[in-house]
Amino acid sequence: MKMFLPILFILCLSFSASYASVQDFCVADLSMSEGPAGYPCKKVSGVSVDSFVYSGLGTAGNTTNIIKAAVTPAFVAQFPGVNGLGISAARLDLAIGGVIPMHTHPGASEILVVIEGTICAGFISSSANIVYFKTLNKGDIMVFPQGLLHFQINSGKGLALAFVSFSSPNPGLQILDFALFANNLPTELVTTTTFLDAAQVKKLKGVLGGTG
Amino acid sequence: MKMFLPILFILCLSFSASYASVQDFCVADLSMSEGPAGYPCKKVSGVSVDSFVYSGLGTAGNTTNIIKAAVTPAFVAQFPGVNGLGISAARLDLAIGGVIPMHTHPGASEILVVIEGTICAGFISSSANIVYFKTLNKGDIMVFPQGLLHFQINSGKGLALAFVSFSSPNPGLQILDFALFANNLPTELVTTTTFLDAAQVKKLKGVLGGTG
Amino acid sequence: MKMFLPILFILCLSFSASYASVQDFCVADLSMSEGPAGYPCKKVSGVSVDSFVYSGLGTAGNTTNIIKAAVTPAFVAQFPGVNGLGISAARLDLAIGGVIPMHTHPGASEILVVIEGTICAGFISSSANIVYFKTLNKGDIMVFPQGLLHFQINSGKGLALAFVSFSSPNPGLQILDFALFANNLPTELVTTTTFLDAAQVKKLKGVLGGTG
Amino acid sequence: MKMFLPILFILCLSFSASYASVQDFCVADLSMSEGPAGYPCKKVSGVSVDSFVYSGLGTAGNTTNIIKAAVTPAFVAQFPGVNGLGISAARLDLAIGGVIPMHTHPGASEILVVIEGTICAGFISSSANIVYFKTLNKGDIMVFPQGLLHFQINSGKGLALAFVSFSSPNPGLQILDFALFANNLPTELVTTTTFLDAAQVKKLKGVLGGTG
Amino acid sequence: MKMFLPILFILCLSFSASYASVQDFCVADLSMSEGPAGYPCKKVSGVSVDSFVYSGLGTAGNTTNIIKAAVTPAFVAQFPGVNGLGISAARLDLAIGGVIPMHTHPGASEILVVIEGTICAGFISSSANIVYFKTLNKGDIMVFPQGLLHFQINSGKGLALAFVSFSSPNPGLQILDFALFANNLPTELVTTTTFLDAAQVKKLKGVLGGTG
Amino acid sequence: MKMFLPILFILCLSFSASYASVQDFCVADLSMSEGPAGYPCKKVSGVSVDSFVYSGLGTAGNTTNIIKAAVTPAFVAQFPGVNGLGISAARLDLAIGGVIPMHTHPGASEILVVIEGTICAGFISSSANIVYFKTLNKGDIMVFPQGLLHFQINSGKGLALAFVSFSSPNPGLQILDFALFANNLPTELVTTTTFLDAAQVKKLKGVLGGTG
Repeated sequence: MKMFLPILFILCLSFSASYASVQDFCVADLSMSEGPAGYPCKKVSGVSVDSFVYSGLGTAGNTTNIIKAAVTPAFVAQFPGVNGLGISAARLDLAIGGVIPMHTHPGASEILVVIEGTICAGFISSSANIVYFKTLNKGDIMVFPQGLLHFQINSGKGLALAFVSFSSPNPGLQILDFALFANNLPTELVTTTTFLDAAQVKKLKGVLGGTG
Repeated sequence: MKMFLPILFILCLSFSASYASVQDFCVADLSMSEGPAGYPCKKVSGVSVDSFVYSGLGTAGNTTNIIKAAVTPAFVAQFPGVNGLGISAARLDLAIGGVIPMHTHPGASEILVVIEGTICAGFISSSANIVYFKTLNKGDIMVFPQGLLHFQINSGKGLALAFVSFSSPNPGLQILDFALFANNLPTELVTTTTFLDAAQVKKLKGVLGGTG
Repeated sequence: MKMFLPILFILCLSFSASYASVQDFCVADLSMSEGPAGYPCKKVSGVSVDSFVYSGLGTAGNTTNIIKAAVTPAFVAQFPGVNGLGISAARLDLAIGGVIPMHTHPGASEILVVIEGTICAGFISSSANIVYFKTLNKGDIMVFPQGLLHFQINSGKGLALAFVSFSSPNPGLQILDFALFANNLPTELVTTTTFLDAAQVKKLKGVLGGTG
Repeated sequence: MKMFLPILFILCLSFSASYASVQDFCVADLSMSEGPAGYPCKKVSGVSVDSFVYSGLGTAGNTTNIIKAAVTPAFVAQFPGVNGLGISAARLDLAIGGVIPMHTHPGASEILVVIEGTICAGFISSSANIVYFKTLNKGDIMVFPQGLLHFQINSGKGLALAFVSFSSPNPGLQILDFALFANNLPTELVTTTTFLDAAQVKKLKGVLGGTG
Repeated sequence: MKMFLPILFILCLSFSASYASVQDFCVADLSMSEGPAGYPCKKVSGVSVDSFVYSGLGTAGNTTNIIKAAVTPAFVAQFPGVNGLGISAARLDLAIGGVIPMHTHPGASEILVVIEGTICAGFISSSANIVYFKTLNKGDIMVFPQGLLHFQINSGKGLALAFVSFSSPNPGLQILDFALFANNLPTELVTTTTFLDAAQVKKLKGVLGGTG
Repeated sequence: MKMFLPILFILCLSFSASYASVQDFCVADLSMSEGPAGYPCKKVSGVSVDSFVYSGLGTAGNTTNIIKAAVTPAFVAQFPGVNGLGISAARLDLAIGGVIPMHTHPGASEILVVIEGTICAGFISSSANIVYFKTLNKGDIMVFPQGLLHFQINSGKGLALAFVSFSSPNPGLQILDFALFANNLPTELVTTTTFLDAAQVKKLKGVLGGTG
C-alpha cells in the first residue's frame, strides 16, 4: 500500500495538469464584456465558495413605494456564480395591498413558490388571449411560461413573501408601465400603438416620470 | 467504366437503406401532437417540394379593420416545412394610417424588411426602458430582439408592405391590447396590475370584446 | 366607435384561427411517450390554470427514515406544466440530523434557498477535486453546477426547510449510495471501480437492499 | 398622487441600478474576438437605434459579373445588431439569366421571399438525394433546410429580387465552385474526391483563379 | 442497524415511484414518428444493455466498389441508444486507393481517428475558400467543422481504417456526386448552377444512374 | 471566356471582403478567458491545418500506476480546434487488470469504441438505479448517457485500447474516488453524506492524499 500514494499522485497530477483550463462552472468576471452566452469566466484561483452563495435575498426588500412591493434579483449581475448555468433567482416582498405589476421576462420561464401569505398570480397566453390566474397559498408553486405577460398581487391580509427562480441567469424584466410611461416614447406613439387615451397616457407619464 | 454503374449503385443502395429513417428536415405532421421542439415529422414519402413552398404571403391581407393593417403569418401551423428549422416568416400590410399595435413575440427575434412605403418601427428595451425607434424606408431592415415590446406604424402617405422573419418556426404573438382587454381578466385585476383607470379599461374592453 | 367591435372581432378571429395549433407553453401529456425534448403537449382545451399550479410542495415530506430527510420533487412527472420550459422545483425537508446524501443531477444545475433552519451544503468540482461548502442560513441561496456531486446537511438544532429549483423540467437524481449499493451490480465490480473494501460494500448492500 | 413620482422613481432607480449590466440584446463589438456564441456585446451606452437598423440592403447589388447576380449580406459582420439573436438577412439580385450557384449555409436554414420576378429555386436532400425545386413567383416563400446544397435561378424575363433570412447571425456560405476551383486544392485531389475529369477541373480553376 | 433496511426501502420506493416516467436517456422507439429533437423514447422496461451497445462496426465494410471504400454508420437509425444524446459514430474502411468522396454532414461536426494505415484528409472553409488538408497517421485525430465539404483518401500502401464520431445522433450525409449526378435534377440545372460542362455532367449521370 | 476571371474575381473579392470576420469554426485562443460557450476564436490568420489535427492520442498513456490505466484527453484544452464544435475525444489505455474507476462527465455523453482487447463497461441509471454493463470486444461501441456514473475494466488477458468521443469540447471528468478522498473534505462530512465507515474513508484518504 505504501506505493499507492506517489503513483496515484502522478495520475492525479496528470489529470489536473491537463485540466488547467477546464472548469465545471463559469463564475462571471463582471469586469469583462459579456457575450450572447454570458460573461467570461473568472480564473479558478479567484473562485471560492462565496462565488456560489448569495445572501442578498435574506432581507426583505423595501416595500414603502407605490406598488407596496419589492423585487430583489439574484441574476448574474448580482450573483456571478449562476453565469452559464441556465438558472437564477429573486425574492418578492409584497406588503398589504402590494402588487408586482404586469410584466414579462423576455428570456426565461419562472417558477414562484409562496413562502408566506396569499398571492393572486396569473399570466395571459397569446393563444386566444386566455388568462390563467389563481390564488396561491403557502407552499403552492406556479410556473409562468417564457415571455408572457404576468402579475402577482398580495391578496391576503398580511405580508406576502415568495421566491422565484428563472430558466436563465439573465431573464430580463420588462414592466409594462415602465416600458410605456417611464421614458421618452412620444405620447402620440403610445396612443397609436395601444389605443389608450392621450389623457390616460399623460397621467401615467406624469406619475412615472415619462416625457414626450 | 462499364463496371461503375452497378457497383456504385450498390453503394448508393446501401446508403439509402441505412438512411431509411433519416431526414435532413422535418416537415410537420400537423395531425399529431406537437412537443416542446415542434411537431413529429411527416414520412419522406408524404413530402414534396410543396412542403417547402408557401404562397399564402403573395396576397395582401385585408386591412379594412380598426388597425388598418393585417399580419399574415407563415408559421409552422400555416407552413409545415419550417418545423424544426428555427425560422418562419410573415407579411405585414399597412393601409394609410395603419398600425401593428404594441406586441411581443415570446419565442423569437424578428427582422423586418420594408418592401413598399415608409414605416415607423420601434422597440422598448427592459434595461432602463430605453426606446429605440426610427422611420424606415424601402429596403431598410430592422431587428427586434426576442420578447421585447415593439410596434410598426405606416408613417407614409401610401400603402406600406413589409416582410418579417423570425428565429423560430413558432414565434408566438402577444398583442398588448388583446392580452389586457379582449378576455375575461377582471377589470379590477387589470387596473391593479397596470395602473390604468377603470374607465379606460372598460372602454377598451368594450371595443375589444372583453368581459369582467 | 360603434364600428370597432365587429371589425376588430374579425381581426381577432383571424389571429386565433391561424394560431389554432400554436401554444406558448406545452403542458405534458403524460399518457404519451416522451422524447428527447420532453412530452408531447396537451391540447389547449385540456389545459387550465391548474396545469400551471402545483400544491404538492405545500406539505412537509416524511422524514422518519434513515436519512431523516425527504425530497419532494415537482419535476415534469409530477408537475406537467413545466414541460419544455427549462425549469422545475423540489422541496427539501431535513429533520434534526437529516442529510440529503451525496448525489448528482445529470441534467440540470440547481439553486437552493433556505427557508428555515441552517444547512451545510457543498459540491465538489472535477477540476482538481476542489470542495466548495458552507453553512447557509435562512434566506441564503447557493447554486450547484450541473452534474457535480453535492450534498445538504441539517447543521442546526431544529428542522430545516429549503426549496430548490433546477434548470430542466427533468433534472434527474443519482444518489451515490443507491447507485452503488441498492442494485445488483456485483460486489467485485463495485470494489474494483471504487477501491472500497468488499466488507464495506457488502455492509451497505445489506442496508440498502443491494444484491450480488 | 403627489407622492407617487418620487417613490416610484426610487423603485425605478433601484431596478435600473441592479440592471446596470443586463442587456436584452447584445450588439456585436466587432473590435473584439468573437466566440462560439458570437461577439462580445457593446456597452449599452454605445448602442443606438442605428445599431438595430441596416440600410445596406436598400440598393441593388452589382450584377455585371459572370453569374449575373449579387448576394448582399446583412450578417453579424455587416449588421452587428443581430449578434446573439439567432437571425440575419441578405438581398439577392438576379439580372436576366442570373444565377446564385449551388451552395450551402453550414450554419443556418434559410427562407426566401420573392419580391420581384420569377425564380427557380431548389435544394437537394441527402436522404436518397431527392431534389426539391420549383418556380417561385412574386410573394412566394421557400425554405431551405440547414446545410443542404441549394440554388436560385432567375427564370423570368426581367430582373428578379428576393430577400432571404437565416436562422443564425452568421450562417456561413460555401459556394461549391469556389470551394472546389478557386483555391490551391491540387487538381488531383479534386478529381479523386469528385470524379470530375482533370480537364474540367483545370478549366474551372482557370476561370475561377484556382491554382495547383 | 436492523431498522435501516425497511426504512430506506421506503425512501427508495418513494423515489422510484415519483420517477416512474423519468429517464436519464431516451432510447429511440424507431416504430414511432421522429420529431425535430429525435425519436420518442422506448419505455424503460423495453431497454436493456444491448440498447446501448452496437456491434455493427466490428466488421469491415465491403470495399469492392468504385470508391474502394465503405462507410458503416452507427447513427440513431442503426443504434437507437444514441437518440437525444448528441453523439453518434461510424466506421470507415478504405482499401488501397480508396476514397470517401467530397461530402458534408449538414447537422454535425466530426472527429476522425486513424486506427490503421495512412489517410489524407481535408476540408474546405467557406471563409475565403481556404483548404485545410494533411496526411494522418495511426493515432492521429482530425476534426471537421459542421457542414463544410471534406474528404478522406487512403494515401498509404495498405488498408486504412478509421472510426469517426459526430456531434449529433443524426448527422446527415450529403455526398457531392450523388447530390449532383445520381438523381433527376435536369442536366441544364446542374450546368447552370455548377458551371460544369454538359458533357461532364452527362458522363457522371451515366455512371451514377442520374436521369434528366 | 477570357472575361470570366476578372469579373468573377470581383465577385470573389466582394464575398471575402464581407466575410472578413466570419468563421466556419472557432479555434480556441487559450490565452484568453473562456466563457460559457467556450473560448474566443483565434484569428483565421493564426489558424492552420494543425489547428484541426492532434497527434497526442497516437501514443499509449503510462499505465504504471495504481489503476493500471491511463486516460489521454483531447479536449479543448489540448486540442483547440474542437472549440465550439460540440465534440472531443480521448484515448483509454488499460494494462492487464487495468480499470477506469467509477466516474461521470458532467457535461457530455460518451461513445467508446474498443480497438484492442476486451473491456467490461457499464453505467448506472438514476431511474431505479438500474445497472447496464456488458463485456465489449474489438469493434464494439457503447454509449454512456450524460452525467451518469460509469466505468471501464480490462476484462481480457492482454492490453486493452479504446477511443472515446464526447458530445462536448469540454466534457469534464469527475472521478468518484478523487472527489471523495483526494481533497480536504472533512471525513465526517464524507461519512455523513455517503454512509461509508470512517475507517474506510480514512484508509482511502491515506491512499489518495486527502486530508481532514
